[in-house]
Amino acid sequence: MTFTDQARAARRASLDLQMLTRAQKDQALQAMADSLAAAESEVLAANTVDVDAARASGTSDAIIDRLSLDPARLSGMVEGLRDLALLGDPVGDVVRGWKLDNGVSVTQVRVPFGVVGIIYEARPNVTADAAGICLKSGNAALLRGSSSALNTNRATVTALRRGLESVGLSPDAVHLVEGGREVTGEMMAARGLVDVLIPRGGAGLIQAVVDGAKVPVIETGTGNCHLFVDASADLDMAVAIMINAKAQRCSVCNALETVLVHRDTAADFWAKALPALAEAGVTVHGDDATRARDASIVAAAPDEFDAEYLSMDLAAKEVGSLAEALEHIREHTTGHSETIVTRDQTSARTFVAQVDAAAVLVNASSRFVDGGEFGFGAEIGISTQKLHARGPMGLQEMTSTKYVVEGDGQIRA
Amino acid sequence: MTFTDQARAARRASLDLQMLTRAQKDQALQAMADSLAAAESEVLAANTVDVDAARASGTSDAIIDRLSLDPARLSGMVEGLRDLALLGDPVGDVVRGWKLDNGVSVTQVRVPFGVVGIIYEARPNVTADAAGICLKSGNAALLRGSSSALNTNRATVTALRRGLESVGLSPDAVHLVEGGREVTGEMMAARGLVDVLIPRGGAGLIQAVVDGAKVPVIETGTGNCHLFVDASADLDMAVAIMINAKAQRCSVCNALETVLVHRDTAADFWAKALPALAEAGVTVHGDDATRARDASIVAAAPDEFDAEYLSMDLAAKEVGSLAEALEHIREHTTGHSETIVTRDQTSARTFVAQVDAAAVLVNASSRFVDGGEFGFGAEIGISTQKLHARGPMGLQEMTSTKYVVEGDGQIRA
Repeated sequence: MTFTDQARAARRASLDLQMLTRAQKDQALQAMADSLAAAESEVLAANTVDVDAARASGTSDAIIDRLSLDPARLSGMVEGLRDLALLGDPVGDVVRGWKLDNGVSVTQVRVPFGVVGIIYEARPNVTADAAGICLKSGNAALLRGSSSALNTNRATVTALRRGLESVGLSPDAVHLVEGGREVTGEMMAARGLVDVLIPRGGAGLIQAVVDGAKVPVIETGTGNCHLFVDASADLDMAVAIMINAKAQRCSVCNALETVLVHRDTAADFWAKALPALAEAGVTVHGDDATRARDASIVAAAPDEFDAEYLSMDLAAKEVGSLAEALEHIREHTTGHSETIVTRDQTSARTFVAQVDAAAVLVNASSRFVDGGEFGFGAEIGISTQKLHARGPMGLQEMTSTKYVVEGDGQIRA
Repeated sequence: MTFTDQARAARRASLDLQMLTRAQKDQALQAMADSLAAAESEVLAANTVDVDAARASGTSDAIIDRLSLDPARLSGMVEGLRDLALLGDPVGDVVRGWKLDNGVSVTQVRVPFGVVGIIYEARPNVTADAAGICLKSGNAALLRGSSSALNTNRATVTALRRGLESVGLSPDAVHLVEGGREVTGEMMAARGLVDVLIPRGGAGLIQAVVDGAKVPVIETGTGNCHLFVDASADLDMAVAIMINAKAQRCSVCNALETVLVHRDTAADFWAKALPALAEAGVTVHGDDATRARDASIVAAAPDEFDAEYLSMDLAAKEVGSLAEALEHIREHTTGHSETIVTRDQTSARTFVAQVDAAAVLVNASSRFVDGGEFGFGAEIGISTQKLHARGPMGLQEMTSTKYVVEGDGQIRA
């Protein structure tokens, strides 16, 4: 099947998907979960082929780890589908409604997008997650995974489609998009066939999709996240939040990358912070003023303030004021999650008002900026753009709306 | 000033705009209105230059009419700015909020986009309208008007900026973007400098922006709008709605372009409809089955079912069922506004559920699908895409959101 054939089949399937009740969708999710569980040996065998090939071509251990499935991870994918069945269905929700003066009623209701394209990297769990989230939100899914996970993704999608068929639904609600790079190009150009594209992966992948797509894109998140330790900060709190945001899981987009420390509190802060950072295994890369605080702090090259480390490294800079911190954030933010630790109400309000990001945090760890932590139950990614959805995207963010206008023959004067 | 300089200046101005209170913005709108009213003679003189040049180059009367200002139209622009001051301010509105189990509070609040680019055609009233809507929603505006209206737009923007300065605000909240076609290209590529692009104009302009832009675009509306007269329709109602939707103002995007008539009611419908259409001055272009109903119906070429007439012409087709009408709409819709006239509840529910459009109407004229009619007070356009905003866009649709996350030192377990 060519990509266009798949997209057309997905479009036809989406017409039925938009009409499904929640009960029908939940039954389908359970059937997809059952079918994936039953296909465990095929999926794991296919994954072994992918992992062996990746290893033979000298792929790094970190990427091999992301690519690898085992019974526990596969079971996580199965449970993920079952968990989606427990979540409410956003389709049909009334966003708002009112009557015009002439009695015409206007109701804005949530509807599926139609066909959603997901372009992602090596993690094979995304295949089941994304298929499930699309199904629950009434959308057909075109899944464009990494070629390194091709065998795993094929076995997974085959199982998911079999699950759909087992409850009488069209398997064309879920497609794995195969083929060379030119197929990604076709997918990005498929305006009218694909309603929305969501890239999930590293900064390079996301940039390529944003630059190349004619289909509307929801940009998901690189996070160059900052923490500003205000002059009035509770320093124990600041250290605890910093360690949690940096070290609880350093490879994710809501992890901390740079700490900005108010000069008036810097000496006391670093006295508390450095032992804790050392214990957590974090290396601090400081500007000159920060380095002058302690010999253990290595030098930060200027471009280290612009990139995500995604490792146990932390950039640090001393600032003379909240305004200077805001200016630094304005210049270096990727618009994901920015935090202030402060006891001062004016500082908190100013920071919240002036920082332009998907999430602005006061006295809490940026690791909370996550669909699971927010209570969305499922997350397709964290949007760092301003159109449609900003921040963690759950099922609701996978819908559009439609105005239903009902009258008794009213015409415009 | 180059485009990039203007965009940077707008970005700086947007930092202050996002902090303005409603009272400050309303004062600015009144000052812009006062300044534009005071500049009447300059603006009208500049408009005469543009209109004379357009006439000399053989521009059509319809476009000359759109380009032309007179004291009444200018006064309409001034009053439009004053009316914006009466509308509520969406910035700061809480969309939703909740507490996490650990006591962290999450609040989703409306914030301005930042810098909005508007690319539009000859109507000079858009200049004041768009500047005002952007200002009220806290956004800086980069206005890219038509070269044929350059003198009018310059005089208008000069007046608006003078108004901003008169109340102590930066004039850089509003810019007219000048220069050749390459500047439109720069504007469409300005990711990071421009947050959203909104094209306003004909299908060609919108398509060019959608195809060329790397900045997120809100696509506004061409409307190939359909009316389905169901077998059970009240025929007097159907005729009244058809005449209103087609002829009340035929040049706009929510005007009717095609009527689909159920075979079982076609003879009776046309017997009532044709005299009314003739009286309204509408020419019917029918398929073979429709033409067989009356000799006055001219032949519709197949491509007439795909385009907007935007004139006193109406395509007509006979269908054997609701399903056939839905299939025709699916193939030909531009996703703007689609209407059914029916007495049958199942037909109404099926039509509402299955038609994929910004607005779906039951027994009411599609001319109601409009920001003014919906009660939004102001409208920047009607979105026919599914991301962010779908249907009439008022002030609320000119905002993004931000999550404010507040705690007492909570960290993630």
